[in-house]
Amino acid sequence: MAVVVNLETGRKEAKPDALDRLTELVGADLARVNQLIVQNMQSDVQLIPQLAGHIIAAGGKRLRPLLTLASAHMCGYRGDRAPGLAACVEFIHTATLLHDDVVDESALRRGEASANAVWGNKASVLVGDFLFSRAFQLMVADGSLRVLEILSTASAVIAEGEVLQLMTSNDTATTEQAYLEVIKGKTAALFAAACEVGAVVGGRPKVEEDALQSFGLNLGITFQLIDDALDYSAKQETLGKAVGDDFREGKITLPVILAYLRGDAEERAFWQRTLEKVEQEDGDLRHAIQLMERHGALKDTVARAAHYGAIARDALGIFPEGPEKRALIDVIDFCIDRGF
Amino acid sequence: MAVVVNLETGRKEAKPDALDRLTELVGADLARVNQLIVQNMQSDVQLIPQLAGHIIAAGGKRLRPLLTLASAHMCGYRGDRAPGLAACVEFIHTATLLHDDVVDESALRRGEASANAVWGNKASVLVGDFLFSRAFQLMVADGSLRVLEILSTASAVIAEGEVLQLMTSNDTATTEQAYLEVIKGKTAALFAAACEVGAVVGGRPKVEEDALQSFGLNLGITFQLIDDALDYSAKQETLGKAVGDDFREGKITLPVILAYLRGDAEERAFWQRTLEKVEQEDGDLRHAIQLMERHGALKDTVARAAHYGAIARDALGIFPEGPEKRALIDVIDFCIDRGF
Repeated sequence: MAVVVNLETGRKEAKPDALDRLTELVGADLARVNQLIVQNMQSDVQLIPQLAGHIIAAGGKRLRPLLTLASAHMCGYRGDRAPGLAACVEFIHTATLLHDDVVDESALRRGEASANAVWGNKASVLVGDFLFSRAFQLMVADGSLRVLEILSTASAVIAEGEVLQLMTSNDTATTEQAYLEVIKGKTAALFAAACEVGAVVGGRPKVEEDALQSFGLNLGITFQLIDDALDYSAKQETLGKAVGDDFREGKITLPVILAYLRGDAEERAFWQRTLEKVEQEDGDLRHAIQLMERHGALKDTVARAAHYGAIARDALGIFPEGPEKRALIDVIDFCIDRGF
Repeated sequence: MAVVVNLETGRKEAKPDALDRLTELVGADLARVNQLIVQNMQSDVQLIPQLAGHIIAAGGKRLRPLLTLASAHMCGYRGDRAPGLAACVEFIHTATLLHDDVVDESALRRGEASANAVWGNKASVLVGDFLFSRAFQLMVADGSLRVLEILSTASAVIAEGEVLQLMTSNDTATTEQAYLEVIKGKTAALFAAACEVGAVVGGRPKVEEDALQSFGLNLGITFQLIDDALDYSAKQETLGKAVGDDFREGKITLPVILAYLRGDAEERAFWQRTLEKVEQEDGDLRHAIQLMERHGALKDTVARAAHYGAIARDALGIFPEGPEKRALIDVIDFCIDRGF
């Protein structure tokens, strides 16, 4: 989930894009989120703010908090609660990133040394636990049991998605359906919760809560599908970001699943050698990308992403037109455009 | 924190002891806790109940849930909420055990293969996250913001204690004060929260909540001090439990701190070689125990434990006499008696 880098690198060559507009719309609230994040990652135990600061401050466009803030604004809410809860969402996200990097044995995050590479796996696990606990403390201070329900459930679903990913990793027989379940859990559940919380603080009826939940879920699926395509994309390479991390780890993502299903026996043997046995040689990554291109696996991963993007767009249909709604819809296109 | 083994092994040679009496007093509620634990560790992702079941079912006398139940009973509460919240406490405890074993690179837990040894560190980290999230979902279902506050704060303090332990590990210059902060966090905070929750469900006034909090905190310190002494104790060895785990990991516990402070230059060089550099040879553990005995380090660790046990006992002074209060006080003595 090298999530925010892609957005960042993508942004550098674009004109004022959807995220910039979103950021501008909720500007003051986002500044407050950043303030709350810095305040609440403090601890007398020095290593905690050091390590947390490394990953939190190192960048990221705060996509998930932006979704909470924009959703809240679209629901007519302008009070203090949205920034606080957006900070909770970012803490939960950061905790999962810290644990992900341990689980994936990643040495890099957003182009810099990952926290586990600098401070070790142990500290990353424990500081992740701290941020996760702190998120719940902040939610308790907010006082809404409904928000606590949404975010505790999302957290459990994220963990289930991550465990499922662990179980399917290196298994080329993973179905597209199983892969979808993984990304719904590990990525989309928090997007969904981030948006839903906006409706809750806005005091909006259930139907709007559900609509924002559906928007976030499908946006999250779109986002992750494109992220997985980008890991094999030449465009990604021209942006200066490493390509092939998923390949080297033997991660089974949709581009692989499609190429495998559409390939012949010899090709399947290639995927099994490289991703199941993780016996890789020079040139294997290039060959993998060639196979994906031959079978339209990347193009069709983007097409699948566009499908979920369309569902996300329609989910917002019940909300009146306005700048936040427009900006949220533009985020869908922004995610998909990264993939071309 | 090979916590519950000691209790178990200790129990085998004792007559009906404090934990048995406590278990008997809250019997039906404890059965309900076990039922809730099994129900709520279920997931469609098979690995989760498998791994969670391994660590949860493998034993443990449910000391923390027992504290919640007995505290609630002592506060006159007999309803359904205590078992549910006691299950939350056990889930939080189990999540920290899973993460601890990863952090400590432990291969054994309660004499059996640890979850990380069987399923790997990755699965242990993620299933820990799942159980932690599930604990919060259960608390949300209970609906008390006060309980959520107590347990989310305890969780953050536990993580802080664990990080602090990481920072002091292998540092023979660790002060007794710093060590106390570590064990207050990593062990005593959850004991304190477990007891305090009993007063909350009992709807008791703040003064009783505080009293149970203080009882739990000081009992937890007592418990951990004895646990740390037992790791160097010959008695422990006769009970069939491995001695010297802390030594081999270079953990700085009170017996080490006292022996170091009371030792001469040559002895300090020994502690530095074995625990800071972790360069250990055959006979080093025996020599370490000899040094501790020479300086009364084990005996005085038990004496320190008795001090906190006395504070715990007096904390219950405001409660009227009764079987639960007597059983809770007996738990203090039970903890200390393990150390002789």
